[in-house]
Amino acid sequence: MEVESRYVAVRHHVEGFPSEDDFEVKTGKLSWRPESGEVLVRNLLAHVDAGGIVPGERVTAYGAGKVVASACAEYKEGDVVAGLLGWEDYTLFRPTPGVLMYKLPAGSDDDDLHLKHHLSALGTSGMTAYAGSLYEVCKPQRGEKVFVSAASGSIGSLVGQFAKLAGCYVVGCTSSNAKVELLKNQLGFDDAFNYKEEPDMKSALKRYFPDGIDIYFDNIGGKMLDAALVSMNTHGRVALCGAISEYTDASHRAAPDLLEVIYKRIAIRGFVVWDFLTRFNEFTGIIGDWIRQGKVQPIVDVSNGLESVPSALTALYLGLNIGKKLIKLA
Amino acid sequence: MEVESRYVAVRHHVEGFPSEDDFEVKTGKLSWRPESGEVLVRNLLAHVDAGGIVPGERVTAYGAGKVVASACAEYKEGDVVAGLLGWEDYTLFRPTPGVLMYKLPAGSDDDDLHLKHHLSALGTSGMTAYAGSLYEVCKPQRGEKVFVSAASGSIGSLVGQFAKLAGCYVVGCTSSNAKVELLKNQLGFDDAFNYKEEPDMKSALKRYFPDGIDIYFDNIGGKMLDAALVSMNTHGRVALCGAISEYTDASHRAAPDLLEVIYKRIAIRGFVVWDFLTRFNEFTGIIGDWIRQGKVQPIVDVSNGLESVPSALTALYLGLNIGKKLIKLA
Repeated sequence: MEVESRYVAVRHHVEGFPSEDDFEVKTGKLSWRPESGEVLVRNLLAHVDAGGIVPGERVTAYGAGKVVASACAEYKEGDVVAGLLGWEDYTLFRPTPGVLMYKLPAGSDDDDLHLKHHLSALGTSGMTAYAGSLYEVCKPQRGEKVFVSAASGSIGSLVGQFAKLAGCYVVGCTSSNAKVELLKNQLGFDDAFNYKEEPDMKSALKRYFPDGIDIYFDNIGGKMLDAALVSMNTHGRVALCGAISEYTDASHRAAPDLLEVIYKRIAIRGFVVWDFLTRFNEFTGIIGDWIRQGKVQPIVDVSNGLESVPSALTALYLGLNIGKKLIKLA
Repeated sequence: MEVESRYVAVRHHVEGFPSEDDFEVKTGKLSWRPESGEVLVRNLLAHVDAGGIVPGERVTAYGAGKVVASACAEYKEGDVVAGLLGWEDYTLFRPTPGVLMYKLPAGSDDDDLHLKHHLSALGTSGMTAYAGSLYEVCKPQRGEKVFVSAASGSIGSLVGQFAKLAGCYVVGCTSSNAKVELLKNQLGFDDAFNYKEEPDMKSALKRYFPDGIDIYFDNIGGKMLDAALVSMNTHGRVALCGAISEYTDASHRAAPDLLEVIYKRIAIRGFVVWDFLTRFNEFTGIIGDWIRQGKVQPIVDVSNGLESVPSALTALYLGLNIGKKLIKLA
C-alpha cells in the first residue's frame, strides 16, 4: 500500500526562537508492505511541544491516529493508537520496546473531547504532572506552599490543580492577565500573577509567598529558578520539568545561589516522564476519575491542519497558548 | 571567677579572600558567677573552617575544651567537652537546645591524637562526610563512580575513603601534586588530579570518568559543578556540601545546564550536618571502628596557638591545608 503524506520539515538549523519561516510543508510517499512488520497510521491529532528543533526531513511528535494497515499482530486495522507519531498525515512505525505506543479504547476517534484528553491530561502531560508533582519528586503535604511556573501550560495547569487536591496553597505564574484570571477563577489556584508585570521577581515571590515556598514546580529554568530559591523554605523541593527559557538562549541560564541550596537543604531534581511508564494505567486511572468527577479541568488548545504547525509552535515559544497545544490532522 | 582571655577579632568587613591583616588578637576578661547558669571552658583545640567572616568582637568555632567552672548540672569541673566554642582562650556558654555541645570521654584531653579525632573524623567533619556520602544523600552502590572535589580537605578526604569502603571507584580533585600523591598512595583513592593543571575541567572529567560520574560530592560549587554535571550519568546524584569557590566571589557561581539535569534525571541536594545530630553516636561509632581497624585514616593539620588562627584561615582559603585544619589553644 502506498499513501501520499504531507509532513512538516525543518528547513535549517534554528537558533533562538523558531519562526514560521523555519518550517515548510512537503509531500512524500510512504510505502507499507505486509512483510515489513510495520504499522501504517493515519494521524488524527498531534502534540505541539517545545524542545529541540533539528533540521531534517521528518519531525516526530506524540499524537493519536488510526491504524490503516498493520503487519504486526499487536495492532489491527481500525485500532486507535497513541504514542510517538509525527507532524505528518501518515506515520509508519515498527513497535519498539521503550517507545511509547498504546491502544486507546475503540471509538476514541469519534469522540473529539475524549481524544483530546488522551493527548493531554490522560497522556504524557498528565503523567508528567502527576509524577512530578504528586507521586515521585515533590510529594506535597497538606498545607504546603506550591509555586508553579508556566502555570497555564499543559503541565503547569494540571500540577496546580493536583496540588490543590493535595491540600496545598498554590500560586501560579503565567504570561498574561487573561491567563491569570483563568488560573484563579476557573482552575482554582489560590493566586496567580503575570510575570511580565513584575520587574523584580524576587520581591514578587516574597509578596505572593509571605511564608515561603515549599515546592517549586519549574517549567522555565533561568532567572525564575534563581528567584524561587531565595523564597524557598528549609527542606524545599524543586522539580525540574522543563527549562523553556533556556532552550533558546543560554545567557538566561539559572545561576542558583548554592549556599542557599545548602543552608536550606533544598533538593533540586530533574525528572523525565518516561521513567514512570510502568505506572501509566495507575496514574491515568486516577486522573480520569478526577476529570469525570469534575475535580480537574484539562485545558486544551487545538489548531486545525498540518499547515498550522509552524505558527502553533512559534506561538508556544512566545507563551501564547493556554493548556496543551494540539494540532488536528484529520 | 574572672579570667583573662585572649580572642581573635575580625577588624572589618572582609570582601573576597581573607588576609591576616583582617584579624587581630585582643585580650578581655570573662566573668563567671555561680548563679549565672553558665559554664566556663578552657579551650584546648578549635576548628578553622571556611565560612562567613563577620566583623565583631568574638568568632565562634567548633572546638574542644575543659570545664573550669560550671553553674549547670549537666557539666562539672574537669569534664572535657566538644561543641560550639570559639577562637579564644576561654568560652562562657549556656547549654542551649540545638547548639552542639557534648561530653568527651574522661582523659580525652591527655590524649592528643584522640582529641584531634574528636574534632575531625569523630566530629562534625566525619558526621558530614558520613551523612552526605553514605547515609542520606548519595547512597552509593557497589561499583558506582564517585567524584570528590576538595578531596584532600577535612570532609573530602573522609568521603573518598568511605566511598571506597562502599565498593565505589573514587577519583578526587585537589590543588597540588603532593595532595594528589596523598590521595592515591595513602588514602586509597583510585585516581586523583590537580585541578590547577587541568585547563579544561570538562575534558579532564571525561578522561578520569570514561564511564561517567554517578555521584559527585561537591565541596566547591562554581564551575566545577557545571563541569561535573556534563559527565554525570543518568540518575546521578550531587551532594552539595560546600561552595568554597562561591564564598569569596559570586562571579564564580555555578550556572548548571538545567536541560542536562532534567534529561539525566539528576538530583542535586544541599544538606547540613545538624540535621543528622540524632545519629551522632551511630555514625561516630561506625567511623571509630573503621579508624581502629585501620580502614580509615583521618588527616589532621594542627597549628599552634591562638595567634596562628589568621594565617591558618588564610591558608585554608588558598587551599594550602591538608585534612582538617585545627588550632591548638592550650
